Amino acid sequence: VNDSPVRVGLLGCGTVGSALLALLERQHDAISARTGLDIIVTKVAVRDLSRSRGLELPVDLFTDDAAAVVGDPDIDLIVEVMGGIDPARDLVRAALAGGKPVVTANKALLADHGAELFAAADSAGVDLLFEAAVAGGIPFIRPLRESLLGEPVRRVMGIMNGTTTSILTKMTEAGADYSEALAEAQALGYAEADPTADVGGFDAAAKIAIVASIAFGAEVTASMVDVEGITAVSADDIAFASRNGFVIKLLAVAERADVDGAEQLSAAVHPVLVPAHHPLASVRESFNAVFVEGDAVGELMFYGRGAGGDPTASAVLGDLIDAAVNLRRGAHASIGALAVAVLRPPAEASSAHYLSLVAVDRPGVLAAIASVLGDNSISIASMSQSAADSELGGALAADEARIDFVTHRTGRRNLEATLDVLRSLESVRRVGSVIRVLSEEEDER
Amino acid sequence: VNDSPVRVGLLGCGTVGSALLALLERQHDAISARTGLDIIVTKVAVRDLSRSRGLELPVDLFTDDAAAVVGDPDIDLIVEVMGGIDPARDLVRAALAGGKPVVTANKALLADHGAELFAAADSAGVDLLFEAAVAGGIPFIRPLRESLLGEPVRRVMGIMNGTTTSILTKMTEAGADYSEALAEAQALGYAEADPTADVGGFDAAAKIAIVASIAFGAEVTASMVDVEGITAVSADDIAFASRNGFVIKLLAVAERADVDGAEQLSAAVHPVLVPAHHPLASVRESFNAVFVEGDAVGELMFYGRGAGGDPTASAVLGDLIDAAVNLRRGAHASIGALAVAVLRPPAEASSAHYLSLVAVDRPGVLAAIASVLGDNSISIASMSQSAADSELGGALAADEARIDFVTHRTGRRNLEATLDVLRSLESVRRVGSVIRVLSEEEDER
Repeated sequence: VNDSPVRVGLLGCGTVGSALLALLERQHDAISARTGLDIIVTKVAVRDLSRSRGLELPVDLFTDDAAAVVGDPDIDLIVEVMGGIDPARDLVRAALAGGKPVVTANKALLADHGAELFAAADSAGVDLLFEAAVAGGIPFIRPLRESLLGEPVRRVMGIMNGTTTSILTKMTEAGADYSEALAEAQALGYAEADPTADVGGFDAAAKIAIVASIAFGAEVTASMVDVEGITAVSADDIAFASRNGFVIKLLAVAERADVDGAEQLSAAVHPVLVPAHHPLASVRESFNAVFVEGDAVGELMFYGRGAGGDPTASAVLGDLIDAAVNLRRGAHASIGALAVAVLRPPAEASSAHYLSLVAVDRPGVLAAIASVLGDNSISIASMSQSAADSELGGALAADEARIDFVTHRTGRRNLEATLDVLRSLESVRRVGSVIRVLSEEEDER
Repeated sequence: VNDSPVRVGLLGCGTVGSALLALLERQHDAISARTGLDIIVTKVAVRDLSRSRGLELPVDLFTDDAAAVVGDPDIDLIVEVMGGIDPARDLVRAALAGGKPVVTANKALLADHGAELFAAADSAGVDLLFEAAVAGGIPFIRPLRESLLGEPVRRVMGIMNGTTTSILTKMTEAGADYSEALAEAQALGYAEADPTADVGGFDAAAKIAIVASIAFGAEVTASMVDVEGITAVSADDIAFASRNGFVIKLLAVAERADVDGAEQLSAAVHPVLVPAHHPLASVRESFNAVFVEGDAVGELMFYGRGAGGDPTASAVLGDLIDAAVNLRRGAHASIGALAVAVLRPPAEASSAHYLSLVAVDRPGVLAAIASVLGDNSISIASMSQSAADSELGGALAADEARIDFVTHRTGRRNLEATLDVLRSLESVRRVGSVIRVLSEEEDER
């Protein structure tokens, strides 16, 4: 038994780093009682030494030389919560190469360079753990890596971005339109001044890239994810969804399909009409959830706080204890080598869809549109027509009608082609929203 | 690297055992690709060799001598899915003593003898894993043991018994009374001919005993759990709950409280009025969920199939892979020694409550009852009175009224004493239901 302390170098001391220091101080003795480990942070690398940390810690704990912390022979283990690719990537590589386990909360780093870093950890024989990089405080990566390693996972769907969930919750529950809901989220500090990373779906894309890589053992990077944000979701779409028993969520979806006996993967982020009784429908505001479908396990959901200093620090601490236990045992967890991902082109995807068209309000128009759908083998699950003077007709001219369809599962390529035919009809003024519907039909994927 | 197969002895081949054999056969190559392990079941011990297994397996795989499988030097690892205490306890002890890791799905065994078996695994330096013993396919034990090891967990609440959830769902959604809903569950095979273990809360008690032991690092056995089943829940209680924004669930609750600076634990199973918007409220039919509250992580929920051959086999397989990886590495997971639990007496617990009284319907009675509550410092959150000719008055005599209260948090001991005073009033005909309410008030625990 090695009774010497596990000495931790912390890179970054913002919201998560300082929450971790406070949590570790509070829990140090309880952790020691349960594991025998004496985990202490002996160095904290920060960008600006002059900024107060709000923590009563000795001044000589802090340094602005992160590389020196990584290279320090008196540091056993590195926790990286600085974020961003540079210099985090070089620091994590250097730590792993030096035989130091790394715990990171860095989503961007893993989404773009995960395979390289997992391989570096494996060849150094040390841990690279990253629970906090996806879905904040929710312990999901560990169950996915370990508990579900033998499970035939078909699909993982996550609500992984709190900003978009808050905006969509506001639109649904207060009837706000998108720009009002965004402005409120910005005023409350839930959305950035430049909200693109969140509302454009890019934050969720980085997370689902990591999840897809782990779930399917193949390298999926953020740039491979088919991304559509929520900026085009209208108050009318929300109203249509509510009336028809759905809520709209921004879902990140990773899926495995057998195409003629060969495995293809897909990873996408897009708004989806989720049936109101589905467990994902009740995920509101800043909560995250990850829904897993597997052939043996059936349906699983993991739910909790997706962000925030304390929940994220909780996830980092779980990894830190695990890495420290492994370090003392001379063991380490391994992702295994990631295969090259064979991705299904987005046009090959299929789904039920909600379509909203504006057409000239005269006899025969609906029949013409329905026959175009039928000619293209698009089967209609439900349809409704609203005149200009009806509740959903607000944006219509007097001679226009709004026609909303929910289709059965249809291929995206066929749908796009069919929409082009509809746009070419004289009687169709415009094709409005086209949003996927989470279908619970017997899957034909 | 050791390339030889990991040879597994399977004890028991009922629903879970045969689902495991099928799943392992399907996933063998995928597991091998990701871990390098060749996991094969080389012996299956069954009680009755003459029963067909419905599996196309060589006859010489099967034996009726479980002790010989455990003692076989050609077996590396034991999976126990036979259930029950005897002979499972002796077999698991013998396997551990012989240096063989054990994966078990045996809830009863761990609830009564967990501490002894965890200690035996530790002293042999091998794994004892049991994900499938609690909440079926939901990966909850591993996150609790590992991810949340450093988290200050305050409370764990689980819906862990599918039979009672199915019965309560039927009562809520179809307006059935308890005996009708039970009879239907029995007809559908969800409930046993003798349903006591489920409807009496004892199955859930065994599960929460295991959860409390792991969450709080102290030995809690099934007999220490304060148990109340659902047999007294009436259609009127369900109707009251629905009208007032609640659903009734059988919750298993493990909690940690600081009492004058000393830590006390509690473990209980009882029906609870859960607010309809709480994530646990949407858990229906045979699904299970476990809700965790921690100071840092906030609120977490784990949701999925609580029973069934395939989901349970999925959980067993996750453990089996983990145990095999550890065996090859010469490592093992440890629960650590369990402390002696200091349990809070059930009378010291406090909660909001729903109370239903039947009183004489005449002026002044309500005031008399309310003043008894007030004199005993029981604060009323809401109250409603129903006359004999009203919708909730079905069971009343013409001169009776039903009075329903929801109280704020109140101590159980004080509540019981106050109910005795109420029972002694000439104007109170009877005290009906007394059911806890999941309170979201600022906790005063």
